[in-house]
Amino acid sequence: MDVTEEREWLVGVLTGQIPLGSAMALELSRLDADGIELRAPLAPNVNDKGTAFGGALVSLMILAGWSLPRLLLRRQGIARDLVIGRCEVRFLAPVTGELRAECDWPERGDIDEFLKAARGGERARLSVRPRIVLDGEALAATLEARYAAI
Amino acid sequence: MDVTEEREWLVGVLTGQIPLGSAMALELSRLDADGIELRAPLAPNVNDKGTAFGGALVSLMILAGWSLPRLLLRRQGIARDLVIGRCEVRFLAPVTGELRAECDWPERGDIDEFLKAARGGERARLSVRPRIVLDGEALAATLEARYAAI
Repeated sequence: MDVTEEREWLVGVLTGQIPLGSAMALELSRLDADGIELRAPLAPNVNDKGTAFGGALVSLMILAGWSLPRLLLRRQGIARDLVIGRCEVRFLAPVTGELRAECDWPERGDIDEFLKAARGGERARLSVRPRIVLDGEALAATLEARYAAI
Repeated sequence: MDVTEEREWLVGVLTGQIPLGSAMALELSRLDADGIELRAPLAPNVNDKGTAFGGALVSLMILAGWSLPRLLLRRQGIARDLVIGRCEVRFLAPVTGELRAECDWPERGDIDEFLKAARGGERARLSVRPRIVLDGEALAATLEARYAAI
């Protein structure tokens, strides 16, 4: 796997094919065996209270969560679209600086099941739990999201 | 109540104080006794599949839902911040054209209770259910959100 090529491709989708990702000035700050981290500066994502706009926090978490199953499909050469189905958001604390969304890879068994169903042409689902972290790893928001390959 | 002044103030918050609202090119298309409607063109809100980005749909619903309790506080001259707490999103169908978020005013009793608590300096909560509608009023997405005056 060519890591640099994969990172460039993902950034191209997140900021080139999704204009709002570009408007948010998001950056791929980490992609490794643990998962992914996306960052965005406060200024383009601020609200009327001077903290991060809830819609920006959700957007960053949706994109962090979407990236993982999307990369799984791409690594396996499975040409299917990936859509978000249902999600629950909790806003826990205001974000007063840079926005940081993290998402861990799902369990190996869940990934295998997802890829098997996706390869077989069935409806394949994978749940992920992206989160907005503050300094010291306290949580500012969480998302439980289910993505489906269709 | 000066309706024009109120509309101008709200648009100023949604697109002047929240840069992402401006990046989405959102417009206040209706504000009346039934509720509110916000619209946004597809182009700045598109995703890699050529349909509306889920984060844009959630952002538009969050802003439509937020506007109603915010206007209630403003009409009563109650100077408190309004934050979103927890919400559940359902994505039901892709949006292939203009984005349209609608939200109805809550029940009179719920509004009275919210304003009474807000006036008394207590934690005041109000739930709203904004939705993304398609032509013919079919639903593309729904949000159940709870806002709190703090």
